[in-house]
Amino acid sequence: MPSLSIDLNADLGEGFGRWRLGDDEALLDIVTSANVACGFHAGDPSTMRRVCAAATAKGVAIGAQVGYRDLAGFGRRRIEYEPDELRDDILYQIGALSAFGKVAYVKPHGALYNVAAVDEVQAGAVVAAVSAFDAALPVLCQPGSTLSRLAIDAGLTVVGEGFADRGYRPDGTLMPRSQPGAVLHEAGAVVAQAVRMAVEKVVATGDGQEVPSPVASICVHGDTPGAVELAARVRAGLREAGLTVRPFAYPQS
Amino acid sequence: MPSLSIDLNADLGEGFGRWRLGDDEALLDIVTSANVACGFHAGDPSTMRRVCAAATAKGVAIGAQVGYRDLAGFGRRRIEYEPDELRDDILYQIGALSAFGKVAYVKPHGALYNVAAVDEVQAGAVVAAVSAFDAALPVLCQPGSTLSRLAIDAGLTVVGEGFADRGYRPDGTLMPRSQPGAVLHEAGAVVAQAVRMAVEKVVATGDGQEVPSPVASICVHGDTPGAVELAARVRAGLREAGLTVRPFAYPQS
Amino acid sequence: MPSLSIDLNADLGEGFGRWRLGDDEALLDIVTSANVACGFHAGDPSTMRRVCAAATAKGVAIGAQVGYRDLAGFGRRRIEYEPDELRDDILYQIGALSAFGKVAYVKPHGALYNVAAVDEVQAGAVVAAVSAFDAALPVLCQPGSTLSRLAIDAGLTVVGEGFADRGYRPDGTLMPRSQPGAVLHEAGAVVAQAVRMAVEKVVATGDGQEVPSPVASICVHGDTPGAVELAARVRAGLREAGLTVRPFAYPQS
Amino acid sequence: MPSLSIDLNADLGEGFGRWRLGDDEALLDIVTSANVACGFHAGDPSTMRRVCAAATAKGVAIGAQVGYRDLAGFGRRRIEYEPDELRDDILYQIGALSAFGKVAYVKPHGALYNVAAVDEVQAGAVVAAVSAFDAALPVLCQPGSTLSRLAIDAGLTVVGEGFADRGYRPDGTLMPRSQPGAVLHEAGAVVAQAVRMAVEKVVATGDGQEVPSPVASICVHGDTPGAVELAARVRAGLREAGLTVRPFAYPQS
Repeated sequence: MPSLSIDLNADLGEGFGRWRLGDDEALLDIVTSANVACGFHAGDPSTMRRVCAAATAKGVAIGAQVGYRDLAGFGRRRIEYEPDELRDDILYQIGALSAFGKVAYVKPHGALYNVAAVDEVQAGAVVAAVSAFDAALPVLCQPGSTLSRLAIDAGLTVVGEGFADRGYRPDGTLMPRSQPGAVLHEAGAVVAQAVRMAVEKVVATGDGQEVPSPVASICVHGDTPGAVELAARVRAGLREAGLTVRPFAYPQS
Repeated sequence: MPSLSIDLNADLGEGFGRWRLGDDEALLDIVTSANVACGFHAGDPSTMRRVCAAATAKGVAIGAQVGYRDLAGFGRRRIEYEPDELRDDILYQIGALSAFGKVAYVKPHGALYNVAAVDEVQAGAVVAAVSAFDAALPVLCQPGSTLSRLAIDAGLTVVGEGFADRGYRPDGTLMPRSQPGAVLHEAGAVVAQAVRMAVEKVVATGDGQEVPSPVASICVHGDTPGAVELAARVRAGLREAGLTVRPFAYPQS
Repeated sequence: MPSLSIDLNADLGEGFGRWRLGDDEALLDIVTSANVACGFHAGDPSTMRRVCAAATAKGVAIGAQVGYRDLAGFGRRRIEYEPDELRDDILYQIGALSAFGKVAYVKPHGALYNVAAVDEVQAGAVVAAVSAFDAALPVLCQPGSTLSRLAIDAGLTVVGEGFADRGYRPDGTLMPRSQPGAVLHEAGAVVAQAVRMAVEKVVATGDGQEVPSPVASICVHGDTPGAVELAARVRAGLREAGLTVRPFAYPQS
Repeated sequence: MPSLSIDLNADLGEGFGRWRLGDDEALLDIVTSANVACGFHAGDPSTMRRVCAAATAKGVAIGAQVGYRDLAGFGRRRIEYEPDELRDDILYQIGALSAFGKVAYVKPHGALYNVAAVDEVQAGAVVAAVSAFDAALPVLCQPGSTLSRLAIDAGLTVVGEGFADRGYRPDGTLMPRSQPGAVLHEAGAVVAQAVRMAVEKVVATGDGQEVPSPVASICVHGDTPGAVELAARVRAGLREAGLTVRPFAYPQS
């Protein structure tokens, strides 16, 4: 019987010029998919090249971490784009990244991730950009989100992702960060949630219910030393549970 | 006997956001190669998409007009880049443009064009970027320039370009704009120079000598109404001289 | 009996680097207050210097046309700023402009203008920025808007502005551009509306009602040749009606 | 007999948006003058506000750390500006900073610092900007540099600065970083050089000569933890040598 497999993804290449953010080196030994910032909210061409080269050398899949044109706000401020302009900005970013490595998937960043999860206009722009670039490219997003639904409707491949360290609500959405329990801090609980997601495809809500969590990738973070350690523990926990940790998308040249 | 052919190139898509520059529509009916700005010194993703779509519809080849990261200076200010950073910035731009259309060639813009014509470091960065993206991609530049020489040494295809409206020196280089005769203003003289370049592959210098001008493309301008009209006259003159005006690079999907 | 006076304001200095927008020269002979773009959505330092110098030479008051940090979107896309960041971005812009001329007032631009008219968070950020820079600086905005109300509450001077060429609703707000009658195109009607606003402080709605319009400045546009001509007619019409056209804010050094 | 005094300056506020650089908090307890980045090569408005507020609270003088418009290059790449454009870019930055605190002096950053030390065009642009903003504002630069000379010629106040951790040549200029001895690493030597500069106004060259070093401020660094500790030792060493460490420029409101 073949073992179950799961992907681990994280944001990489989020510096800009002189500025660095996160420990790309350490993360590349932990994750199997690297969401590489493409220059609009973070990421400069030389950083993109370095991260893509290192990811490729380690068998880590490269994803386009696309975001708003907002360096000052790190892509975290909602911007009311015209749909065509947003699609074109995303398309530009995917194309730019493709010059540095084989793009294996697309994942929206920051406010674009959150807005596209609920807003048809911005979700539609993401879908249109991916469809225009390469309709075979998977979109990494939350199961059940508006982006997921529109991407499926458009015939795109959707890969569901879960968060090992976030609290979930009964409808399968994340608890707002303002609520208690929104972020799990205890390492054992984080690892346990990751394993359940990966093996049983369910996640426990704050009040003890179980909701389906059809994820093929688990998102971890690396922008603090503690986060890198936690990500490593998640990986170790998944392997101890018998899972194969590998990219959901296999880069092919 | 097949007729001689010549390419006409011009800079297009040089607006940014709300700002427009030049008459892209008019130029696309005149030129056969469009040097499309890629977002670093000019050009935004939506403009790139529009220009690429229109160029493709009209059989105009799309070239990557790559430049320095300098929107405020329109890429006209020399910047002392680290070679790797310049290569990566250029690679990024070519990749970004490729999301909107088939990139058929690369032409440096503004200060990068001028510096790469004489400076080995920056010429080398252009060559490295093109080689990394697609070594089959031609580089459009001045015959005899440092960029031309390094590109040939690296095994790239080089396409020589001439300027219909500029005065030349006996060594084949352009007269500096500060000198009298540096720019030809009389339409008849401009057309005549274009025809001689295209047919005889020579250009007359200010003092009446003839120097070789091995060009396969002639650059025209479109950022003033008069310039567009002059470009149209150059095209008409070339056709009247029996030349076929067509792209030097045939886009293939 | 002293004659009534009215101010005419327009957006100036809205180019960036190589790109120009509108006819600043022509407008400076028509308006008495120049809303000068401050570099975040439009306007570069050299343009700011030129416009401020010309305005000062002609007795035209200089206002800080502050906007979102969004060159690509020309400040027309709503951005969900943190209040402190928006206040600081605005404060920065006012300070920058003050290096080129005496800033006589502040007017938000584009999406910031529209959002601050109805949103307490962004209106509050504008008020906080002006209060921090110089609490004696007037804010130019729509009468009855949220920005107007918060500015008054904070002890700032508010100057109401009206639009000569826009249709009004019974509550004193502008008709959305999507509705018929939202923009007046006939020159006579535009001039007549400006004169009524200036003399009677009322404006007629689309269905013939009259609503109060307590304005001390009328906004005209200059980004098309026809707009400049229309602005000149508005000025002529105001003077024929016996009004003195002069800045509401007198620059003092 | 009044004690001798010396100023310690360092670069602060060099983050941008999400990105941080250096330990501003720690440095503000060590230095007496803060060179605050103004947004063109580093520094965003909210960072500027925070650093200025903290500096003012601690009696640290605020200087405008002006640089090229080059976020991606951190202002370290030489750019061939038109002189007027460079002057206007610098003027803009000083004005912007003045919205957050009392600007007590101006110090060029990175490539602008290096170029203005030897190039009359760029030095002249710095001088023109300071003269236009406030001719009473001191310029902090290397004694004997072109910038120093032109600033003195223009009637500006010049404050000489020395580097505690750099090797000097017999002509009083810094040793290029490519040469051995260009950077002093041993803390005792760094402190000793600082004390000699401050007390005797001389510095020892690599080959044992002594050259005059008429400095009123010593530059320290803070972009690594070790650098902060070294800066603290320099301060302690100066105080132990009987010097009063205080701003050369006293902010006055």
